[in-house]
Amino acid sequence: MAGILVRKSKKTGLPPGTPVYVGDEEPLPAHIDEISYDKDEFREKVVDDVTEILDDLKSPDTTWVNVNGLKVSDIIEIGTAMGFHPLIQEDIVNTLQRPKVEEYPDHIFFVLKMIKYDEESEEIDVEQVSFILGDRYLVSFQERHGDCFNIIRQRIRENKGIIRKMGADYLAYSLIDMIVDGYFTVLEQIGDRIEEIEDELVINPQIDTLHDIYAMKRQMIGIRKSVWPLREVISRLDRIGSKQFKEGTSIYIRDVYDHTIQVIDAIETYRDLLSGMLDIYLSSISNKMNQIMQLLTIIGTIFIPLTFLAGIYGMNFQYMPELGWRNAYPALWGIMIIITGLMVVYFRRRKWL
Amino acid sequence: MAGILVRKSKKTGLPPGTPVYVGDEEPLPAHIDEISYDKDEFREKVVDDVTEILDDLKSPDTTWVNVNGLKVSDIIEIGTAMGFHPLIQEDIVNTLQRPKVEEYPDHIFFVLKMIKYDEESEEIDVEQVSFILGDRYLVSFQERHGDCFNIIRQRIRENKGIIRKMGADYLAYSLIDMIVDGYFTVLEQIGDRIEEIEDELVINPQIDTLHDIYAMKRQMIGIRKSVWPLREVISRLDRIGSKQFKEGTSIYIRDVYDHTIQVIDAIETYRDLLSGMLDIYLSSISNKMNQIMQLLTIIGTIFIPLTFLAGIYGMNFQYMPELGWRNAYPALWGIMIIITGLMVVYFRRRKWL
Amino acid sequence: MAGILVRKSKKTGLPPGTPVYVGDEEPLPAHIDEISYDKDEFREKVVDDVTEILDDLKSPDTTWVNVNGLKVSDIIEIGTAMGFHPLIQEDIVNTLQRPKVEEYPDHIFFVLKMIKYDEESEEIDVEQVSFILGDRYLVSFQERHGDCFNIIRQRIRENKGIIRKMGADYLAYSLIDMIVDGYFTVLEQIGDRIEEIEDELVINPQIDTLHDIYAMKRQMIGIRKSVWPLREVISRLDRIGSKQFKEGTSIYIRDVYDHTIQVIDAIETYRDLLSGMLDIYLSSISNKMNQIMQLLTIIGTIFIPLTFLAGIYGMNFQYMPELGWRNAYPALWGIMIIITGLMVVYFRRRKWL
Amino acid sequence: MAGILVRKSKKTGLPPGTPVYVGDEEPLPAHIDEISYDKDEFREKVVDDVTEILDDLKSPDTTWVNVNGLKVSDIIEIGTAMGFHPLIQEDIVNTLQRPKVEEYPDHIFFVLKMIKYDEESEEIDVEQVSFILGDRYLVSFQERHGDCFNIIRQRIRENKGIIRKMGADYLAYSLIDMIVDGYFTVLEQIGDRIEEIEDELVINPQIDTLHDIYAMKRQMIGIRKSVWPLREVISRLDRIGSKQFKEGTSIYIRDVYDHTIQVIDAIETYRDLLSGMLDIYLSSISNKMNQIMQLLTIIGTIFIPLTFLAGIYGMNFQYMPELGWRNAYPALWGIMIIITGLMVVYFRRRKWL
Amino acid sequence: MAGILVRKSKKTGLPPGTPVYVGDEEPLPAHIDEISYDKDEFREKVVDDVTEILDDLKSPDTTWVNVNGLKVSDIIEIGTAMGFHPLIQEDIVNTLQRPKVEEYPDHIFFVLKMIKYDEESEEIDVEQVSFILGDRYLVSFQERHGDCFNIIRQRIRENKGIIRKMGADYLAYSLIDMIVDGYFTVLEQIGDRIEEIEDELVINPQIDTLHDIYAMKRQMIGIRKSVWPLREVISRLDRIGSKQFKEGTSIYIRDVYDHTIQVIDAIETYRDLLSGMLDIYLSSISNKMNQIMQLLTIIGTIFIPLTFLAGIYGMNFQYMPELGWRNAYPALWGIMIIITGLMVVYFRRRKWL
Repeated sequence: MAGILVRKSKKTGLPPGTPVYVGDEEPLPAHIDEISYDKDEFREKVVDDVTEILDDLKSPDTTWVNVNGLKVSDIIEIGTAMGFHPLIQEDIVNTLQRPKVEEYPDHIFFVLKMIKYDEESEEIDVEQVSFILGDRYLVSFQERHGDCFNIIRQRIRENKGIIRKMGADYLAYSLIDMIVDGYFTVLEQIGDRIEEIEDELVINPQIDTLHDIYAMKRQMIGIRKSVWPLREVISRLDRIGSKQFKEGTSIYIRDVYDHTIQVIDAIETYRDLLSGMLDIYLSSISNKMNQIMQLLTIIGTIFIPLTFLAGIYGMNFQYMPELGWRNAYPALWGIMIIITGLMVVYFRRRKWL
Repeated sequence: MAGILVRKSKKTGLPPGTPVYVGDEEPLPAHIDEISYDKDEFREKVVDDVTEILDDLKSPDTTWVNVNGLKVSDIIEIGTAMGFHPLIQEDIVNTLQRPKVEEYPDHIFFVLKMIKYDEESEEIDVEQVSFILGDRYLVSFQERHGDCFNIIRQRIRENKGIIRKMGADYLAYSLIDMIVDGYFTVLEQIGDRIEEIEDELVINPQIDTLHDIYAMKRQMIGIRKSVWPLREVISRLDRIGSKQFKEGTSIYIRDVYDHTIQVIDAIETYRDLLSGMLDIYLSSISNKMNQIMQLLTIIGTIFIPLTFLAGIYGMNFQYMPELGWRNAYPALWGIMIIITGLMVVYFRRRKWL
Repeated sequence: MAGILVRKSKKTGLPPGTPVYVGDEEPLPAHIDEISYDKDEFREKVVDDVTEILDDLKSPDTTWVNVNGLKVSDIIEIGTAMGFHPLIQEDIVNTLQRPKVEEYPDHIFFVLKMIKYDEESEEIDVEQVSFILGDRYLVSFQERHGDCFNIIRQRIRENKGIIRKMGADYLAYSLIDMIVDGYFTVLEQIGDRIEEIEDELVINPQIDTLHDIYAMKRQMIGIRKSVWPLREVISRLDRIGSKQFKEGTSIYIRDVYDHTIQVIDAIETYRDLLSGMLDIYLSSISNKMNQIMQLLTIIGTIFIPLTFLAGIYGMNFQYMPELGWRNAYPALWGIMIIITGLMVVYFRRRKWL
Repeated sequence: MAGILVRKSKKTGLPPGTPVYVGDEEPLPAHIDEISYDKDEFREKVVDDVTEILDDLKSPDTTWVNVNGLKVSDIIEIGTAMGFHPLIQEDIVNTLQRPKVEEYPDHIFFVLKMIKYDEESEEIDVEQVSFILGDRYLVSFQERHGDCFNIIRQRIRENKGIIRKMGADYLAYSLIDMIVDGYFTVLEQIGDRIEEIEDELVINPQIDTLHDIYAMKRQMIGIRKSVWPLREVISRLDRIGSKQFKEGTSIYIRDVYDHTIQVIDAIETYRDLLSGMLDIYLSSISNKMNQIMQLLTIIGTIFIPLTFLAGIYGMNFQYMPELGWRNAYPALWGIMIIITGLMVVYFRRRKWL
Repeated sequence: MAGILVRKSKKTGLPPGTPVYVGDEEPLPAHIDEISYDKDEFREKVVDDVTEILDDLKSPDTTWVNVNGLKVSDIIEIGTAMGFHPLIQEDIVNTLQRPKVEEYPDHIFFVLKMIKYDEESEEIDVEQVSFILGDRYLVSFQERHGDCFNIIRQRIRENKGIIRKMGADYLAYSLIDMIVDGYFTVLEQIGDRIEEIEDELVINPQIDTLHDIYAMKRQMIGIRKSVWPLREVISRLDRIGSKQFKEGTSIYIRDVYDHTIQVIDAIETYRDLLSGMLDIYLSSISNKMNQIMQLLTIIGTIFIPLTFLAGIYGMNFQYMPELGWRNAYPALWGIMIIITGLMVVYFRRRKWL
């Protein structure tokens, strides 16, 4: 599962501020698109020449530059053109970054994790998204060409909600809100899986159930690693907000903060449930074995004396008076039935049967 | 069980401030009733036209507007008529909200959870209640038509206690107190259930007992999720109180805060008890199996050598001198009885019998 | 066990400030006695008419009014006569109160829990004691007629220690100290019980031992519920002390605070010990079963092949050459002894015997 | 083990400030010796008359008065002569005190715990040491006549290190450092014991190993109880240091504080190791039983069908054709060997053998 | 494993500020090399005479003095020559130091732990590195002659990155960054080992797997002990930075702080995974035994009644009518097959087969 184990050896020993991509696959070349808008109009374009961007940022409109693909050389080019600190460039490309926020004189830089549940592999897919928020612009960086931000783009185009009336800070909020909503979607799917496992536990617990529980636990650890720092990031965004975040946006940031708390709540709840399920699993398994043992005990214990008696009268002593008795054989059957009856009664009394 | 698992997908991707009902059932249309009162008189009416309310709120009396049913269009209508922020409208309708409090210039908005123990399904029923507290008015929103606030209404009508002498803040306090009292009722029922399970544990622990313990644990997790934030909410209400909460009400708020702490205490206590009960359950079960095993061991161990001896004298060798001895058979019985006796003594000594 | 489970339903729905007794038994009618003293003299009397008290409180002496029995109507009468807030009256009578402290303009109100170990029922007996501390007076309320405060009364009468030289704040301290000392007595008895159980664990662990451990754990939870808030109460008494608590008493309050910390320390230690004992118990039990299993294994494993051999030569085939051999029978005995010997050696080597 | 369980009943009900010795053995009569020194010279003497001390304290030298033995009447005499608050006298004698520090106008009073590992009883021996630190003097109280402070005395006599150049605060630091060093010695011995147990666990885990682990755990609880408050004490000594602790000593206090943190670290590490060892123990034991069970299973399962076959041909039916067949007997042996072989192959395949 | 257990007895009783080496092996004699550089040039030399260093430190260049080997007398010589406080000398040599930072008027002293995974012994190798950072110089002390700082040296020589443009504070940061990168390398190797164990768990869990899990846990404890204080150290370096750490370096320090948090995150994640793996291990083992037990049960339970029947007809009674019946023998076989069939069906139904 991506994001749980540490993979960073490629970086060791390089001077700080050297951007190195650390993911498993080759990073895609950067594809840049740009939307500028104000209350009344909006412009959309694909950027080929990085230098254009700088001019656009100077316009009084709100400008959103979105970069898909983190090919190192491209990111350096963009970062240098726009005058971002080398450490920012390094952080954008280092996709094992922990969510964090950093203030620079002219802009705020923050890194978040976007998660998606991959139905096929039944694993959580984590993608890093970095943002640079200036006074009137927002630059966002994604690992892959995805369309999860399209909904926001659509809202801008169609002037839905208040997004066109607000500035870059509200745009940043909208994207964060989008990402946090993604957590709920994943948690909902995990919640469904948990309910399935709960049902399995009651009906027919098996060793696979245990591996499922462990896998869920591992996923919760992975999500938690993304969400806990997210909470700090959003809370810090609210506190440092005065400059980049205007008064009116603050209430929205607090709203998304509340959602983050809800996500954390849900994660803790799921962890509690999973550890409770583990107890149930272990007990159910041992209970199942118990029932089997009990049956063996009872069958074994009933037959042991009977077999012993049969053994006695299978002996070849010359002088065994019972052997010659006329009704000895049916009498022995009678005795055996009585012994069996007494034992059954005894076991019933002790509630073993 | 309501309130444990995350169900929020309906909302994903909508612009913030868009009210969406997220519960399982269709929300009911809003039914509005209104009570106005001061020291000397009170007026009660059902509101059909939302615009009337605004006029009533301007009167110097204390006005309590109660809305039952969260049909989205109705809530938007009411919220817009009274000038509440779109995020408030969204929060009222989003019944998976976490208890929280938010200050606005003219009023405080807070969300609580009301819980009820449903005897039939043996589950906790969680209902969201939202409040908007202004200087002289209180607006409350409930999911369902219930009568749990009737006691307060009755107190106003009959001028019982000091409620008519105090303002909207005291009314808010009375309703919060009502809700917190509901927690005690539920905890009491759970406490009874815990005592029943404790008795079961001593007398006859079974796999069902385990499932009961897990179900209780799940319920505690659910209640806890409602109560922990409740504590913060009430504590913040006390701290920000200066404006909406008058001096004299503050002591009552602290009192209800103490009750919340008691609820949390009880929940933690129950969790401790439940985890202790799990240990007891597991041990009792293994102890039960132990007793059975021990009996088998002893019966088995006693008969094994006897059966072996019987087998020996069942052999068909031509030259087995014992077979011809006159008293061999009774002698063998004697030896068997002695062996059995020695083994019983040995097991007694080792305290296995 | 008193004090663990929530019992509060009688109160639900009543207006706040309505005193209701919530204990199991009928509360006793209030019995009031009063001691006034200064450096030089002291007066003691039983109060029949509540109105007398007020006059006594005005005298420059230190006055201690002690009320035994919490019959609701009596408490209301006393509380109203002395001008205490309705919430105080409610809290005095509500014996499921959590220890707490509340400041009022003229006095401090605080509630503590007094515990006693009931040897017969082997349970902890919790009694609520409430105090109202004014400038020169202290009013205390107890549930039952007990004599645990007699020692203090005796000290006042005999002018032992510095109590007569100090004011009402020192008197309050003396009573708190008395109550905290009671915790030590209970903890000592529990400590003895823990040592007994530890011995049982080593010598002969049984299912009863487990139930004892659980009972102790339950008791620790109960005591903890009383002591944790006690710590906050005493720490707050120290902090708010400036008015009611004079400079010279503060050092005594800190001393009793240290004792409370010691009690909490002891409780945490006992909890640690108890959970360690649970591990020991479970392991001992499983070890015991282990020994039994091992013996069975060995006896069983030794006899299985012997019995098989006996079965072989009990077969009735017409052509079994061994049956006719002269020394077959003693030879078989020899083989059986050798097999047994080899198995014993093998088990010894593997340290199973 | 001393120091774990609460033993305080002797004190219950006594007026505060009444010194009572609470240890198990009779306290020794106080033996007082005194060292005065400055940069250039030092004087040493045994004090018989308590009143002498006061004069010595007035000299400009640094004076260290050490009292061995806590006989109550002696401590009262000394305490009264030197004008210490009754609560200090009580705390010195109450050897179940928690480490703490208290500021008085003229001096600081602090209580520490000195620990020693008693090789014979394999238990931790805890001794209380109290200090009163004035501007130019230090008074220390120990329970027993020991020589652990002799090293310091020697350093003063021989003018080793900087001790003679510094004041009473540095002397206090030296003694604290001595005591904290004692913790390391004990922890080292416990560390050795832990390594021994780890080895036992791998080679041959037994029920005794479990009791050892529990005993170690108990000891860690005991040490922890002494060390955690020690940390607070030293940290407070540093913070309040301005008056009694001079600028230059502060760095030493911080150094000893670092050591205390190291001790706490080690304790937590040991606790972690011990709980890990418990898991290993339980698994090893169950693994051992597992191997035994497995062998039994296989031997049993192999012989069960063989014995059944032998039983079949031991039956006495008149018409059993096989009995008369010429090669039936060797054929049966062949069949039995084949069955055995197949079962062995099957078990091998499933990795059970 | 180095660094887990306390080894400090050599120091007990020595005056504070006495440097004593506490490691297992004899410390190496100190080897000193020195690099001075500014933007334009750099000088490198091996120092033989300690007194030279002082002159070099006075030059306006940035000077890095690196000492390999902690032979006590050498460290005292160096420390005294450069005027470091005796406690610093003690701390450098005491390799069981906890990471810490201390401010002195002219320089900051801090101690870190460098870790390396020793492939052969499969253990973590911990080495202490101490730094003294002045305005224009940095002195570093290592236990062994290693070349892990060579990368930095190379960067200085080749003027790679911005290191030559920055001062001693950036140099210190570069070394800290190097050390923290080392943690990632170790964690990556441990991560690989964890994945291996996870695979083992699924395929064929064995008692060795358990010992591996315990060993990993022990290693995590060891690393954690080094990293937790490291975090405080770096955070304090950032806060106290104003003097030694220039404005521009602060952002780098925060970056390395983020990395430390990532390390801590990874450690906590690994701990969670390991404890989850322990659960899996225990369950898998018990599940394995379960399968074996189940098979035994079924084989045993099937043969027990059959063997009993064979025993019955092996009895030697003179009057057993069945024995004479013509088809009794094949009929009995039929009955036995039917019994077996019924039992198999029954077990299948209960899902035991």
